[in-house]
Amino acid sequence: MAQRLIVVGGDAAGMAAASQARRRRDRSDLEIVAFERGRFTSYSACGIPYWISGVVPERDQLIARSPAAFRNDFDIDVRLRHEVTAIDLTRREVVARDLDGGGEVRERFDDLVYAAGAVPLRPDWADTAAGGVFGVQTLDDGAALREWLDADPAPRRAVVVGGGYVGVEMAEALVQRGLSVTLVEQSDQPMSTVDSDMGALVAEAMRGVGIGIRTGVEVTGVEERDGRVSAVVTSEGPVPADVVVLGLGVRPNTALAEAAGLPLGPTGGIRVDLRMRVAGVPGVWAAGDCVETLHRVSGLPVHVPLGTHANKQGRVAGINLGGGYATFPGVIGTAVTKVCDLEVARTGLRERDAVASGFEFVSVVSESTSRAGYYPGARPMTVKLIAERPGGRLLGAQIVGWSEAAKRIDALAVALWNGMTVDEMTGLDLGYAPPFAPVWDPVLIAARKAVDALARAGR
Amino acid sequence: MAQRLIVVGGDAAGMAAASQARRRRDRSDLEIVAFERGRFTSYSACGIPYWISGVVPERDQLIARSPAAFRNDFDIDVRLRHEVTAIDLTRREVVARDLDGGGEVRERFDDLVYAAGAVPLRPDWADTAAGGVFGVQTLDDGAALREWLDADPAPRRAVVVGGGYVGVEMAEALVQRGLSVTLVEQSDQPMSTVDSDMGALVAEAMRGVGIGIRTGVEVTGVEERDGRVSAVVTSEGPVPADVVVLGLGVRPNTALAEAAGLPLGPTGGIRVDLRMRVAGVPGVWAAGDCVETLHRVSGLPVHVPLGTHANKQGRVAGINLGGGYATFPGVIGTAVTKVCDLEVARTGLRERDAVASGFEFVSVVSESTSRAGYYPGARPMTVKLIAERPGGRLLGAQIVGWSEAAKRIDALAVALWNGMTVDEMTGLDLGYAPPFAPVWDPVLIAARKAVDALARAGR
Repeated sequence: MAQRLIVVGGDAAGMAAASQARRRRDRSDLEIVAFERGRFTSYSACGIPYWISGVVPERDQLIARSPAAFRNDFDIDVRLRHEVTAIDLTRREVVARDLDGGGEVRERFDDLVYAAGAVPLRPDWADTAAGGVFGVQTLDDGAALREWLDADPAPRRAVVVGGGYVGVEMAEALVQRGLSVTLVEQSDQPMSTVDSDMGALVAEAMRGVGIGIRTGVEVTGVEERDGRVSAVVTSEGPVPADVVVLGLGVRPNTALAEAAGLPLGPTGGIRVDLRMRVAGVPGVWAAGDCVETLHRVSGLPVHVPLGTHANKQGRVAGINLGGGYATFPGVIGTAVTKVCDLEVARTGLRERDAVASGFEFVSVVSESTSRAGYYPGARPMTVKLIAERPGGRLLGAQIVGWSEAAKRIDALAVALWNGMTVDEMTGLDLGYAPPFAPVWDPVLIAARKAVDALARAGR
Repeated sequence: MAQRLIVVGGDAAGMAAASQARRRRDRSDLEIVAFERGRFTSYSACGIPYWISGVVPERDQLIARSPAAFRNDFDIDVRLRHEVTAIDLTRREVVARDLDGGGEVRERFDDLVYAAGAVPLRPDWADTAAGGVFGVQTLDDGAALREWLDADPAPRRAVVVGGGYVGVEMAEALVQRGLSVTLVEQSDQPMSTVDSDMGALVAEAMRGVGIGIRTGVEVTGVEERDGRVSAVVTSEGPVPADVVVLGLGVRPNTALAEAAGLPLGPTGGIRVDLRMRVAGVPGVWAAGDCVETLHRVSGLPVHVPLGTHANKQGRVAGINLGGGYATFPGVIGTAVTKVCDLEVARTGLRERDAVASGFEFVSVVSESTSRAGYYPGARPMTVKLIAERPGGRLLGAQIVGWSEAAKRIDALAVALWNGMTVDEMTGLDLGYAPPFAPVWDPVLIAARKAVDALARAGR
């Protein structure tokens, strides 16, 4: 008799695991049932801001693979609008509620992949009866926001609460739609995903495209009129708003996992081993935004919800489930984004992370250009490096620039991944031609500057 | 009494060495004299095609630092239009001829940096009395060509002989100037700097912008009319030409070095150690296009004339000359270029190099996109990987794509530099956001495909 795999959550991690398992085990060997409480499978949540802005015209462009494709091409029984409400590890079965039809189903499993993703941080004040307050975690969230924005008369004033990646990308999206946008951030600067010297460049660019930025401001509630939000109430007075978007970050979605007794780590994510097996629970796997993973530089567990990790982790779980061998080696915190034309990238540790981890280090900021200075289209680029002292091992890097900047973080990420020192990096053989780089690549210029800083610091 | 440093050749390598030496030793300790037979110092030879095309409007934009700047800011005695004609290692002096004023000077040295660059391969037929046949090795060469192109009536038909980087870039430049361009290549395909499957994509793009390509054709002479070239004579008949550009590659400029008894290696380049000391000749250093260097993958000496290496090698020589410590770690053959909008990149070994080095390997070619497929501006990108079999160590990579493609080679170059296997590479934490990459970066997709190929090959 075939074994059964139950997948909880039909987005990137869950469906990557399911399809990798299917590649290695056919239906006579493994039945696969995937429960997804939303209406979509395998979509790009990271793409939602670009659909909201209209840069991506159609919602369905964000869907990598439809439920029908999973059914037909992978023989995976995908059940949409089914929310798993309980996992019974003793009886090895799950209970799922049919959100549309009503009623409950019970399904037994031999293996279970828990891929329930993350839930947005939602302050109490956001639970208002007033319309117009939106998260953008799921495609359903995005659809609701888009419908609100498309209404007639259209909202004119937007407040984005929180200045992380989602907040900044949503602020850009709303500006592109022609709204007047204010970003409200509790700390002293948005984009705290990079150090404050680099973040200041981002804030400046955001103001440059007309995004109002209010920092050091706490939101305490909303005002409403006729059942619709009319302002955000803050520690420094009200900010008018016809629409409010939450970008306060997310936490691992683990309520169900906790109830079932799956172990959580210090970050609140599910604890898994390198093969994505839930620690100490045979036959149960977890992947994606609900797990915690190893930061390879700090050595500490971290929670980094990002589609690329979710896909990789799901693939690793699926290969192992299918009888193959794969491990997920952890992360180094690489991330890229853009605010209109400004590109922002990071990898490894920020200064505050390096301090928190106990590293001693030097940090340098260098200015150069994306192309040879004389080549048309050359734009300024700022590269920051953080290097361990003594020794010079690269601990972190950040880039802010105007074009062709962000993806240069990859060379730095691979250098960091391999434990290179900034001294070694000065010799790297990177691509050079005038349309693509100065004869000293910005990465090499930064590495040289870090070497000099280490020398001055007595290494 | 101060010691004396003589620099032979005032371009990238020589002047990088001189300025690094000066940073560490002031004039009372070290006098520096640099002889340059041309009219310029420290210019970007790689930029010449873009000045010819007009993309870079002014010649002087290509000059990184003028002789006056070296004199004033670095206290370096730069003597332009002075050709060193002899190096006497016993008496430790050089003889230089003043090309404009006439006469000779003799200068003693304690240390010598030999940075005479490369000389273009120039077939016998190119030594014609007819005007209109040009190399593009030096800025003086470029100036002569540009003058010819700017004449009235302007040349209409160009033939570029040789399909390497310079040939391809010059073909593009001449098309951009509105000429009718034919590229004549002796082998079966231009751009043999990448494997033929990837080179075919480049050839197709070149034809797409109107560059005529004649392969398998040998040039045997030129025809002339009224003292001007009128056609190139080939093994398959004449090809009309009002201007002929040579792009046949270069060889190390070592005549003077050989006469002085400096040792050459198997590539014809000067043999140096990791600190850029000429092997076995105390107090003599060499750097740039005249030296051979270690290929870190094949373990063999190679001659790779490229500005970025020349700068790095010059810097290393100068640091060591100045009493510091630096080594040049060798190269891995990274190179990038573009043909109109098509970008081409490589690092490491091509298939033929891998065969010649005795490696067993698998190679895979994968198709993906520069951005998330749904994000506007996503363009196709082809990534080829060559991985050692068994074991999976990355040996080489090539990329052809339409935008945001070429510099992705850097991540692959750093992976290769560090000896990563394609298996390890599948876990790399590269930057992901929809405007910058699909959720599986093209590099990761290629690595996964290589892993599959190794598995099929029994690893």
